Amino acid sequence: MKIGMIGLGKMGYNLVLNLLENQHEVVVNDVNPEPGRELAGKGAIAAESVAELVGQLAKPRVVWVMVPAGPIVDGVLEGLSELLEEGDIIIDGGNSQYKDSIRRSETLGRKGILFFDAGTSGGMSGAQNGGCFMIGGDKDAFATIEPLFRDLAVENGYLYTGPSGSGHYLKMVHNGIEYGMMQAIGEGFEVLEKSAFDYDHEAVARVWSNGSVIRSWLMELTQNAFSKDPNLDEIRGVMQSSGEGKWTVQEALDLEVSTPVIALSLLMRYRSLENDTFHGKVVAALRNEFGGHAVVKED
Amino acid sequence: MKIGMIGLGKMGYNLVLNLLENQHEVVVNDVNPEPGRELAGKGAIAAESVAELVGQLAKPRVVWVMVPAGPIVDGVLEGLSELLEEGDIIIDGGNSQYKDSIRRSETLGRKGILFFDAGTSGGMSGAQNGGCFMIGGDKDAFATIEPLFRDLAVENGYLYTGPSGSGHYLKMVHNGIEYGMMQAIGEGFEVLEKSAFDYDHEAVARVWSNGSVIRSWLMELTQNAFSKDPNLDEIRGVMQSSGEGKWTVQEALDLEVSTPVIALSLLMRYRSLENDTFHGKVVAALRNEFGGHAVVKED
Amino acid sequence: MKIGMIGLGKMGYNLVLNLLENQHEVVVNDVNPEPGRELAGKGAIAAESVAELVGQLAKPRVVWVMVPAGPIVDGVLEGLSELLEEGDIIIDGGNSQYKDSIRRSETLGRKGILFFDAGTSGGMSGAQNGGCFMIGGDKDAFATIEPLFRDLAVENGYLYTGPSGSGHYLKMVHNGIEYGMMQAIGEGFEVLEKSAFDYDHEAVARVWSNGSVIRSWLMELTQNAFSKDPNLDEIRGVMQSSGEGKWTVQEALDLEVSTPVIALSLLMRYRSLENDTFHGKVVAALRNEFGGHAVVKED
Amino acid sequence: MKIGMIGLGKMGYNLVLNLLENQHEVVVNDVNPEPGRELAGKGAIAAESVAELVGQLAKPRVVWVMVPAGPIVDGVLEGLSELLEEGDIIIDGGNSQYKDSIRRSETLGRKGILFFDAGTSGGMSGAQNGGCFMIGGDKDAFATIEPLFRDLAVENGYLYTGPSGSGHYLKMVHNGIEYGMMQAIGEGFEVLEKSAFDYDHEAVARVWSNGSVIRSWLMELTQNAFSKDPNLDEIRGVMQSSGEGKWTVQEALDLEVSTPVIALSLLMRYRSLENDTFHGKVVAALRNEFGGHAVVKED
Repeated sequence: MKIGMIGLGKMGYNLVLNLLENQHEVVVNDVNPEPGRELAGKGAIAAESVAELVGQLAKPRVVWVMVPAGPIVDGVLEGLSELLEEGDIIIDGGNSQYKDSIRRSETLGRKGILFFDAGTSGGMSGAQNGGCFMIGGDKDAFATIEPLFRDLAVENGYLYTGPSGSGHYLKMVHNGIEYGMMQAIGEGFEVLEKSAFDYDHEAVARVWSNGSVIRSWLMELTQNAFSKDPNLDEIRGVMQSSGEGKWTVQEALDLEVSTPVIALSLLMRYRSLENDTFHGKVVAALRNEFGGHAVVKED
Repeated sequence: MKIGMIGLGKMGYNLVLNLLENQHEVVVNDVNPEPGRELAGKGAIAAESVAELVGQLAKPRVVWVMVPAGPIVDGVLEGLSELLEEGDIIIDGGNSQYKDSIRRSETLGRKGILFFDAGTSGGMSGAQNGGCFMIGGDKDAFATIEPLFRDLAVENGYLYTGPSGSGHYLKMVHNGIEYGMMQAIGEGFEVLEKSAFDYDHEAVARVWSNGSVIRSWLMELTQNAFSKDPNLDEIRGVMQSSGEGKWTVQEALDLEVSTPVIALSLLMRYRSLENDTFHGKVVAALRNEFGGHAVVKED
Repeated sequence: MKIGMIGLGKMGYNLVLNLLENQHEVVVNDVNPEPGRELAGKGAIAAESVAELVGQLAKPRVVWVMVPAGPIVDGVLEGLSELLEEGDIIIDGGNSQYKDSIRRSETLGRKGILFFDAGTSGGMSGAQNGGCFMIGGDKDAFATIEPLFRDLAVENGYLYTGPSGSGHYLKMVHNGIEYGMMQAIGEGFEVLEKSAFDYDHEAVARVWSNGSVIRSWLMELTQNAFSKDPNLDEIRGVMQSSGEGKWTVQEALDLEVSTPVIALSLLMRYRSLENDTFHGKVVAALRNEFGGHAVVKED
Repeated sequence: MKIGMIGLGKMGYNLVLNLLENQHEVVVNDVNPEPGRELAGKGAIAAESVAELVGQLAKPRVVWVMVPAGPIVDGVLEGLSELLEEGDIIIDGGNSQYKDSIRRSETLGRKGILFFDAGTSGGMSGAQNGGCFMIGGDKDAFATIEPLFRDLAVENGYLYTGPSGSGHYLKMVHNGIEYGMMQAIGEGFEVLEKSAFDYDHEAVARVWSNGSVIRSWLMELTQNAFSKDPNLDEIRGVMQSSGEGKWTVQEALDLEVSTPVIALSLLMRYRSLENDTFHGKVVAALRNEFGGHAVVKED
C-alpha cells in the first residue's frame, strides 16, 4: 500500500527501508531534508512539506508519524488534522505517553480521523529488518493498516492491543521491563568485574547467549558491546533515560503496584547522572557528627 | 566416551539422555533405583552402587555428579574419593556454592583427583537438548572432558572459565541476573494486570517474544505459562529460591558492589513467603500511635 | 486573637483545644455538629454554618481549614471565597498536595484573599500540646498569623518556608522521610522477631529510646505500641498511606533524584495491601517452566 | 567500683571520662600511651601494659575492652585470658560481630572467664555524658557489672539482652535501622536541595527537630551539621560503613527477612564509593547497541 512517513530519524528511516523492501510505496518527509533525499534514492517519494506528503496519498490516507515524543508530536498532529479528512488514519509509532495518545485519539476522532498508537520495539535493526509492534486504536479500522504491520514485524511480532492508548501503554511497560533486565545484566557483570576471578566479559556474554536461562537479545547485544570494547573502558556509566521507565513507575504508583526492580532500575539511572549526591553528604556529615568518623573533603 | 553419572533427578536424567543421544556410554547411579532402570531401557548402564559405577569405567575415569547442592555433594565426593585414583576426574554439575567447589577441588586434588565445577543452565529442556555450561578447574585436564561439553551444549554454549570455583561462581551470577530478569517481567505483567486496559497476557508475552528488545527465553516461557493458565489463577505467587540469588547478593556485599535489582529480586522472594510481616505491623502500629489511623485487626 | 476553624476531626479538634489553652477565641464549624458542641463546652464558639463562622470574625478574618485533602478542600475554599474579602486570610493546615496549594493561592489571590499552606506535623498529641508547622505564603501577611503558630508550636517548632506551596512541599518531604524511618524501624524489629534470640520488643524500643543514636519520637511510639500489644499479635501488617509518600516519590522522579529508601518504603506499603501478587505468580510459573520447580497451588 | 579499660580511642576515652565522673576507679591502657597520660591527669590510673592493668585490679576483675572490631579484639582477649582467672569479667563494648562474641564467650568460658558483649550507642557524646548499652552474657554475673551501666547510661538506657551475642546482635540491628534513618533523611534533603523552592537546610532541620513526627537525635545532628556548613559544600557524599549494616543485611538474608530499606541504605553507601560503575557502562552500551543512543565517552 501507499503510506506517508513523517520523521526520518533513526527509527523512521529504518522503517521506510523496511516498508520499501516489502514493496510499499512511501512518501517521506522530515524537517531535515537530507534523509528524505537519501531515501528518494532508494525508492521513496520525498515530499518537501507535510502538505505535499498528504497530497500524494489517496483516501483513506495513512500517515505514520515517527518524531520525538512530546510537543513535537502535537505540532505534527495539528498540522495533519488540518490536511486530513474523515476516515484518514494516523499512526504514532513513537514513544508517546499513553495518556497523550488517548487525548490525541479523542481530539482527532472529533474530526473523524482515526488515530493509532503503535509502540515500536526492536531497535534500529528491528525497524529495518523486522520489529515488534503493539497497536491500540479502532478495531475495525485496524484491518486497513494490519498489512503494514504484518510486513514490518517479524512473525508473531505485532499485536492489536485494544482501545487507544493501549499500544503505547504496553510499550511503556515493555520498556520498564527492559530497564529491569538491563540493570540486572549490568549488576551481574559488575560483580564479575570485581570478583577474584578473571573473566572474559565477551566470552561470558557469548556463553550466556547460548543455551542459558538468561539467553536474550539483550545478552547478545551485551556480547556485541564487549566485542568492541572488552572492558567498556571507553565509555562512562552514565545511564540516560527517555521517559518510559519513569512513566511505568508513575503508573505503578497510581495503581499501587509494588515494582521495586523497575523503580530501582530507574533510580540507579538517575544516580548515574550525578558525580556526587546531597544525600551522601548528609549521611557523611551525620556519621561525623555522632561518631567523629572522618569525611572526605571536597578538593 | 564413557562416563559415570551419579544423580538422576530432573537434570541428571536429562543429561544422560543427551549424552546417549550423542553416542556416549553412560553408567548411571542414583539412591533411587527407578530412574536408572528407565535409563537402562534407553541405552544406559545401570550401576547398583557407586563402587559398581566406578568399576565400570576405565582410567582416567570421568564421573559427573548431579545431586542436590550441599552436604549430599560432600557425601558423594567422599565416597568417590576412596574409589577413584590419581588422574581421575569428577565434574560437579549442580548448583554448588563456589567456595565449596574451591574447597572440594583442593581436598580431591591432594589425592590427585581432578575436580571441575560445571555450572549448568538451560533447565530440563536444555539438559536434554542442549544447554549452557560454565566450567572451572584444571585447564590442561579440561581437554579430556571438553568433548562431553561440546556435545551437551548448544553451539557456543560452553565456556572454560578458569580455576576451580569460577564455573559455579559464574553460574551463581547468572542466576542472580535471572532473578532480576524474572522479577522485572513479573512486575511488568502485574502493572498490566492492574491496568485499565484488558490485555491478553499470553498474546502480550508472544508479541514481546518476537522482535522486541526484551525477547528472551524467559519471555517465551512466560508465554508458555500463560498458554496453560491465562491469568495464573491456579497458582500462588510464592517465590521459592534455592541459594544462588542469595549467594550473589552475599558476594556483592563482600565486594561492596551495589546490586539493588538483584537484591530486591531476592527480598521480594522472601516477602512472598509471608502472609503478613512484622515490619508491617510495626508501621501500622506507629501510624495508629501518632495519627490515630485505623489498623486492620487480626481476625 | 480570634480565628475560625473549619474541620473538627482528629487534628482540627486538637488544634482548637491548643488554641483555647493559649487564650485565643475560636469559632468552630464542621459538617458533623457533634465536635463543635463538645468544643463549645470547652470555650469555643460553635457556628452552625461557614457563613455564620465568617460572620463572627473581624477583618482581617483568619480561617483555618483542617479538612481531608483533595476536593473537599476545594469545596470549602470556594465557599469561603464568596464570604471572605480582600485582606482576609485562609490557612490550609491539612496534607494538601503542594501543587494544589499553589493553584489555590493563585485563585484566592485574584480576590485579594491571602492563602497559607501550613504543613502540620506532630500527630494528634502535637496538635493539642505543641506541634510542628511549616508555612508557605505571603511573607508580609505571615506576620499577622505568626502569633498563632508561636502558640501552637513547640519552641522552634514553626518555620515560614517561602512562597505558596513551600509549606506543604516541606511537609510532603517530611512524610517521605517518615515513611523511610518507619520502614527502617519495622525491618529492624522484624529481624529481631525472627532471630534466634528472644528479645522483649518493648524493652528494646525503650532502651533505643534512651541515649542511642536512633532515639526519636517514632522509637518512643514504638515502645508505646509494644507496651500495649507485646508482639503486635492483634493487628495485621497492612500499611495504608495517605498520599505524601507517593507525592515525594513522584517529585523525586520529576527532579531525577535517586530516593531508593523512600521509594521502597512506599512500595512495601503497597505490597502489604495484597495477599498475593501477580508478579509472584509469574516468577513461580517461570521457575516451574524452566526448572520443573514445584508451585504452590491455589486452594 | 574499680575497672580496667583497654582501648582509649574516641569511644573508650569518653567512657573513661564518664566512669571517672561517676566516681569509679579506672585503670587504663592503650597501644598509644598518649591518651592514657591525658586521662591520668584527670584521675585515671595509667597502666603501661595489659599485665600491669590486670595487676591493679582486685578479683573478680572487670576489664572493658574498647578496641576496633576484628582480629584486634581476639588479640586483646588472648592476652587477657592468660592474665585473668575464673570469675573475672571481660566486657567487649565495641562493634564486634555477634557470632564472634558467641565464639569468644565460649572460649573464655572454658577458663571460667565471664564475657559480656555490650553494644554501645550514642556516639562520643553519649559515651561521655550518658549513652545506650545493650548487654549480652551470663545473667547472674550481670549483677556484678550492672552498676557500671547504670552510671554510664542515661536513664533507661541499658538493657540486659540475654545470652552471649544478644547484645552485639541488638547493636547490629540498631545500626541497620540507623543506616535506614540516615539514608531517609539524606534523600529528603536531596529532594529539597533540587526542588524549585529555596529552603534553608539548617532551618528545616531545626523545625523538624521540634515537634514533628520525625524529630530525633539524628535530625538534631543534621541541624548541627548544616549550622557549620549550610549546603555541605565542604564535604563529599562518600558514605563509609563499618560493618554493622552489612551484617544486618547478611543476617536478614539468612533469616529470609525482607529488609529492602536497610539493604538499599547499604547498597547506596557502596555506590557512593564509586566515581563510576560497571553496571552503568553495560547499560549505557546496551542502549547504544539497540537504539543508537549516544554514550558519554571517557575523557
